[in-house]
Amino acid sequence: MVGRMNIIKRMITDESSTAGRIFNITIQLLIVLSLLGFSLQTLPDLTVRQRLLLRASETVIVLIFTAEYLLRIAYAPDRRKFIFSFFGIVDLLAILPFYLMLGIDLRAIRTLQLLRVVRILKLARYSKAMQRLSRAFKIAKEELQLFLFTTLVLLYLAAVGIYYFENPAQPEAFSSIFDALWWSVITLTTVGYGDIYPITAGGRFFTFMMLIIGLGIVSLPAGLIASALSEARKMED
Amino acid sequence: MVGRMNIIKRMITDESSTAGRIFNITIQLLIVLSLLGFSLQTLPDLTVRQRLLLRASETVIVLIFTAEYLLRIAYAPDRRKFIFSFFGIVDLLAILPFYLMLGIDLRAIRTLQLLRVVRILKLARYSKAMQRLSRAFKIAKEELQLFLFTTLVLLYLAAVGIYYFENPAQPEAFSSIFDALWWSVITLTTVGYGDIYPITAGGRFFTFMMLIIGLGIVSLPAGLIASALSEARKMED
Amino acid sequence: MVGRMNIIKRMITDESSTAGRIFNITIQLLIVLSLLGFSLQTLPDLTVRQRLLLRASETVIVLIFTAEYLLRIAYAPDRRKFIFSFFGIVDLLAILPFYLMLGIDLRAIRTLQLLRVVRILKLARYSKAMQRLSRAFKIAKEELQLFLFTTLVLLYLAAVGIYYFENPAQPEAFSSIFDALWWSVITLTTVGYGDIYPITAGGRFFTFMMLIIGLGIVSLPAGLIASALSEARKMED
Amino acid sequence: MVGRMNIIKRMITDESSTAGRIFNITIQLLIVLSLLGFSLQTLPDLTVRQRLLLRASETVIVLIFTAEYLLRIAYAPDRRKFIFSFFGIVDLLAILPFYLMLGIDLRAIRTLQLLRVVRILKLARYSKAMQRLSRAFKIAKEELQLFLFTTLVLLYLAAVGIYYFENPAQPEAFSSIFDALWWSVITLTTVGYGDIYPITAGGRFFTFMMLIIGLGIVSLPAGLIASALSEARKMED
Repeated sequence: MVGRMNIIKRMITDESSTAGRIFNITIQLLIVLSLLGFSLQTLPDLTVRQRLLLRASETVIVLIFTAEYLLRIAYAPDRRKFIFSFFGIVDLLAILPFYLMLGIDLRAIRTLQLLRVVRILKLARYSKAMQRLSRAFKIAKEELQLFLFTTLVLLYLAAVGIYYFENPAQPEAFSSIFDALWWSVITLTTVGYGDIYPITAGGRFFTFMMLIIGLGIVSLPAGLIASALSEARKMED
Repeated sequence: MVGRMNIIKRMITDESSTAGRIFNITIQLLIVLSLLGFSLQTLPDLTVRQRLLLRASETVIVLIFTAEYLLRIAYAPDRRKFIFSFFGIVDLLAILPFYLMLGIDLRAIRTLQLLRVVRILKLARYSKAMQRLSRAFKIAKEELQLFLFTTLVLLYLAAVGIYYFENPAQPEAFSSIFDALWWSVITLTTVGYGDIYPITAGGRFFTFMMLIIGLGIVSLPAGLIASALSEARKMED
Repeated sequence: MVGRMNIIKRMITDESSTAGRIFNITIQLLIVLSLLGFSLQTLPDLTVRQRLLLRASETVIVLIFTAEYLLRIAYAPDRRKFIFSFFGIVDLLAILPFYLMLGIDLRAIRTLQLLRVVRILKLARYSKAMQRLSRAFKIAKEELQLFLFTTLVLLYLAAVGIYYFENPAQPEAFSSIFDALWWSVITLTTVGYGDIYPITAGGRFFTFMMLIIGLGIVSLPAGLIASALSEARKMED
Repeated sequence: MVGRMNIIKRMITDESSTAGRIFNITIQLLIVLSLLGFSLQTLPDLTVRQRLLLRASETVIVLIFTAEYLLRIAYAPDRRKFIFSFFGIVDLLAILPFYLMLGIDLRAIRTLQLLRVVRILKLARYSKAMQRLSRAFKIAKEELQLFLFTTLVLLYLAAVGIYYFENPAQPEAFSSIFDALWWSVITLTTVGYGDIYPITAGGRFFTFMMLIIGLGIVSLPAGLIASALSEARKMED
């Protein structure tokens, strides 16, 4: 009995042990499976049998996650600290929607269902990548704020300008500055769906000017994060 | 009386004092509120009551901005210099449209209204980011001119080429080199609305060639500004 | 007789000899011709004569590739090693579909035909570029994994979010999370076909937020590979 | 008489003299005017009077360019060398179409007209930018070749793959590998017109894979040229 408890303890607390590694891989697989099940459930033409199967697998996975959560609390050096830590809260949020849905009226279910996506954050526990990325964001914080502020100003100015040029010609498409803002986001990020675009000569020339100015600024963060990432890597060495 | 005057003076001239900080945050909030009001006003289906409310809030904000402008003049070390400085002019332009619209015929109003967007520049007063960005632009000035010149030449050549290939096949879409220029801007920036695109084999192959050459050049400024920004940051330290 | 054998041996084994250089250029031309023939064959409105011509040229090219394969085995210092090496397998796969199609029922032919594209990998033998690129990928491996993981998480979160906003408004376009995933791939890579896009205010604001976060991350690998390539070049010097 | 000749000689040969600077700016303005006239001429609904005006201004500009060409030959230190130099040939090609069109049947005119665009290259004479850019291309030559080769292979593999997935579902849109190549160019450069896109689950997943791999490679040249440009600048100092 003592031996079995030891294996479970090692499983939870010692990542480098065989038991710990198997446990971690299992949990990761269950997270991915759970997200797959969540995605499959949104398919519009499922049969009753398929729905039942998804429901059953969801129940099993939640029970395992609940056991994992309770064990993590049990073996935490400081239980209170774990419960209120980032991963403690994530682990709770990953199972909470399921239990809340057992005793709740049907209308709020849809939003609760979507909360299941929080489980993806459980994956972050196993990823050094996430830690490095968050460090890189801290390094580039000031530059990213500068980028964000400039981008917002630019997007707004582009929206006001295109509204001025296109609203008289296309009162439906560019009905207000909010529609024009949608256009400026989709254009300056170069997504360009084609659902809304200028047709007047003035509006087209203005778009050209905005793109020449905007491309250099909107695509800045890639470079900023890239160099911050290389700095973050150096700090790890 | 002296004490109150001192608070107002500190509010305007001393950014690090409590009064100054509260004043600055208030002004920034009012700028954002004013831009929001300006955007809401363009919504096509507002009720009379909503219009009156927007009008009232606009009046209040302009009065506050007017008081701010007059106080800034009053407490400026050199009044003439402040009035003709960048922010002096911006502060004036931010309130001028409102007063001009009081005694003017209705037709010019639309353009005057849009001038209210100048207020966004008032925000620049509070942003170190803007100063760093303008410094970065100065550092990369020569490269950016090179980029601009090359891009313009490339866009024009692409337009002439696609006009040659597509005009006979799509005389409506590619009716002149100006339409072809619109195509080359939207294609080489990779926006790609889909309102105009080549359909002939020649035009498609030409597009491929232009994209291979053009992508490297059109997306240059991001890299140029990124490295100029890091230089500008070093200069601040 | 001995002289002729020597020329053939040199042709295969000594790239710097005249015979070797002519042989290599011939093989490269044949690879390109073979891919061109493969592409032409998919044209829907070929005449019988054109089909026969393509078939004949395919037969000739495969026979030459077969001779090349056998000669490479014959002159390899270690035959077994060559046969199971990357290029040994590629050389075999480049001719196998042809011979398999001689004695096989018609239905599997289509997939077999497409395997002919493997021939493009034969070109890699002549390219230092490929070697440098694969070295660059090894250098940036860890960063690229980080990018891949973050991108996958981001794409999934974007898909769940947009599904939440747009599914009630466009149940056809955003029918499940899988459709929403297609949207998030096409949007965050800024391709933006325009076949599926948000129309609700919430969905549009969410798209804006995702693009601001996502652009910096999705366009990371370009910078990562660029710097890895320059490192790989230094290692060659 | 001697004095006037001296001014003309200085105008042509001494860029730093007042006469030379005025002459250069005049020629640059004429080039831009000439390109504008060329663009205006393609407008489909010009009146007869507008056409005559454009024709007249074209004649004047060509006569001035002819005088410039003859003067440049006259004052060249080595006339033969100038005539066969890059700018000597460009100067000739800039006026040749006009004279050829005087004595030619009407059908070839359209292509000849388009040759007028060569005049844009006359601008390169005044641009240090062009020289630096061509130097940067030389520095990054090897990397750009690597990029070009990899991109071509990737585009072709993407085309074959999407043809395999989409041809059975959309035989019209993906009718052959050439249509699929157009798709892969427009998708991997993230232009995304929306004229052709996958609709099958397999094709969409394949597109996702290709974009993940391809984005890093297709957007490489921007970084390569950016760093080559900074090297080229250092070489100038």
